[in-house]
Amino acid sequence: MQALIAIDSFKNSMTSIQANQLVATALAAHGIMSQQIAIADGGEGTVAAFLANQPGGERLTVATVDVAQRPIKATYGYFAAEQLAVIEVAAASGIQFLSGGLNPANTNSYGTGLLIKAALEHGAKKIIIGLGGSGTVDGGAGILRALGYRFFDAAHHELEMVGADLGRVAEIDATQANTKLKHVQFINASDVTNPLTGEQGAAAIFGPQKGLAVEKVAQYDCAMQHYLTVATGKVSAHLGDGAAGGIGFALRYFLGAQVKSGFKLIAELSQLAARVQRVDIVISGEGQVDDQSFMGKVPIQISELAQQAGKNCYLLVGNQKGANQAFADHGVTTVLPIVDHVSTLAEAMQQGPANLERMADRLGRLLAAN
Amino acid sequence: MQALIAIDSFKNSMTSIQANQLVATALAAHGIMSQQIAIADGGEGTVAAFLANQPGGERLTVATVDVAQRPIKATYGYFAAEQLAVIEVAAASGIQFLSGGLNPANTNSYGTGLLIKAALEHGAKKIIIGLGGSGTVDGGAGILRALGYRFFDAAHHELEMVGADLGRVAEIDATQANTKLKHVQFINASDVTNPLTGEQGAAAIFGPQKGLAVEKVAQYDCAMQHYLTVATGKVSAHLGDGAAGGIGFALRYFLGAQVKSGFKLIAELSQLAARVQRVDIVISGEGQVDDQSFMGKVPIQISELAQQAGKNCYLLVGNQKGANQAFADHGVTTVLPIVDHVSTLAEAMQQGPANLERMADRLGRLLAAN
Repeated sequence: MQALIAIDSFKNSMTSIQANQLVATALAAHGIMSQQIAIADGGEGTVAAFLANQPGGERLTVATVDVAQRPIKATYGYFAAEQLAVIEVAAASGIQFLSGGLNPANTNSYGTGLLIKAALEHGAKKIIIGLGGSGTVDGGAGILRALGYRFFDAAHHELEMVGADLGRVAEIDATQANTKLKHVQFINASDVTNPLTGEQGAAAIFGPQKGLAVEKVAQYDCAMQHYLTVATGKVSAHLGDGAAGGIGFALRYFLGAQVKSGFKLIAELSQLAARVQRVDIVISGEGQVDDQSFMGKVPIQISELAQQAGKNCYLLVGNQKGANQAFADHGVTTVLPIVDHVSTLAEAMQQGPANLERMADRLGRLLAAN
Repeated sequence: MQALIAIDSFKNSMTSIQANQLVATALAAHGIMSQQIAIADGGEGTVAAFLANQPGGERLTVATVDVAQRPIKATYGYFAAEQLAVIEVAAASGIQFLSGGLNPANTNSYGTGLLIKAALEHGAKKIIIGLGGSGTVDGGAGILRALGYRFFDAAHHELEMVGADLGRVAEIDATQANTKLKHVQFINASDVTNPLTGEQGAAAIFGPQKGLAVEKVAQYDCAMQHYLTVATGKVSAHLGDGAAGGIGFALRYFLGAQVKSGFKLIAELSQLAARVQRVDIVISGEGQVDDQSFMGKVPIQISELAQQAGKNCYLLVGNQKGANQAFADHGVTTVLPIVDHVSTLAEAMQQGPANLERMADRLGRLLAAN
């Protein structure tokens, strides 16, 4: 029996790669061979997932800066054969760099721009940018500056483009932009559908979790609206532009990026649908499945592929909300929650790998016996 | 697909009959038909289990007394075709009657004797006595008195034979014992292996939980030893004689009872081994499986029968202690703990039926798909 294993991360407990590996090992003990596909959501772990799924990649280290322009080393993934770079915004501009008074007003995404620049110089013709886990709300201006764009105020003083500069922008000069940008295809890996501004915009929704005082949200949103208008001459922007504090906007509007979900990118690159056809069973899962899962979450996208291919599909999950039949209606043979004893949530998360291993072993025994 | 379902009780959560029924219903939804065998351990529910397993039985109500000679109604099971009575010691002499200063010294098993007497008068030729859940430590003397035995002290005063009288017995007179006793086969349904006296005896092990003050155990044990010597002329008794506060002894020594486990009786009566042969899969389980399970507990006895018959066997359990492989070595295809989400022990027990139903539904889906 051949299984395809493509389990999403169990947040704060296991990465996709770890979960896949545990299940593969458990099933192998019962004679069930498997292929693994690491799932990426555009956040931390996206590069690792691409490298795990696709042979021929390597992790390159670059000297760059963090959200406060402090020198750091960061890495990105590079596939020479495909001239493909995979960059996580979180690597240089992630929320983990915020501390000691840093907030959207005094930070930017310049470091991510330096990673993109390094990828361009390395020969990338296609760059996938994972937009999850960012720590800035600069409308992507920092990235643009690192790539040669220049920002000026009304007195023609050049701006550094931390968040506080957004409202002062009067002119954006693209004449010195990196010439390699013309020959590169950008893809934003993101599931976020927020617009750049407004009630569902970057400042309102993502600002507070990045240190923006709630009472400053309205003013910040207004500055972002000003930046948008200066850049585009328009007052509205696309859904998804608000991703990563507006990096979604900059990459789409200035660099022509398309937007795809991390899962879709992985599915295409790994030929997921074709591989589902070739195995006997499919195994997915996630930290939690619930009503939201039916809105396009990874495990249900996979179970629906399995259903179309006429394959049994098992979901190993941390927590199941919803009736068994609701999942069966979407091609899930059965959900198997991995919590198998009385425990607290903290214990369940800490014991996640051991719980998953035991439940996968049970599934292996069941499948081998039937 | 045909399943044989024989799940032991989940203590303080579900009876065997309830658990079997929930699983049968869940499996039927996926086209899996089943037969059920209710498990009895000699305690409360033993009569119900026999009635559930064996057609032609009825529950008869008898006026009797409780441990303190207070009038009560109690029931026993009767199978006319087999002239078989099934009586629970717990029905009239159970621990549930203890309150308000009652303790082994001032209680006895007389009420159970009245139930036995009623069964004799009803025509029973075989009486199974479930020894679990008793509330007395009278060496079974109360039962014997109800059946015509008389107990005297050294001054030839007749004794009531509450526990406090054990040490005063000088003579036991069987001349007026019920004549029907000669023609009846008694079987003790019990898993207890404690002797009547000593460190592992009835007073030491079962006395305190029935209200005997710990500092009085030694004296009580001494009185029980005196009773034993007067009765038998010997100082030691058989293993199992300590069951139900010494009722095990009285039934064995005076009434010639054999001892069998509740499970063995059920297994024989229901032709369990032969039925395992005729089904496709076997399902058992219990509130907890652990190292003790391998010492002859019901689920493992059943899984070993399944193994001998070459059938897959699934255990649905409240809690699994021990590695999956340890159970597999005893014929268990897989253990499936029914706890499937973060919860406290109290919640898990309260939610037992719902948890069992969900896990049985998952098992049904898995089996139906494979």
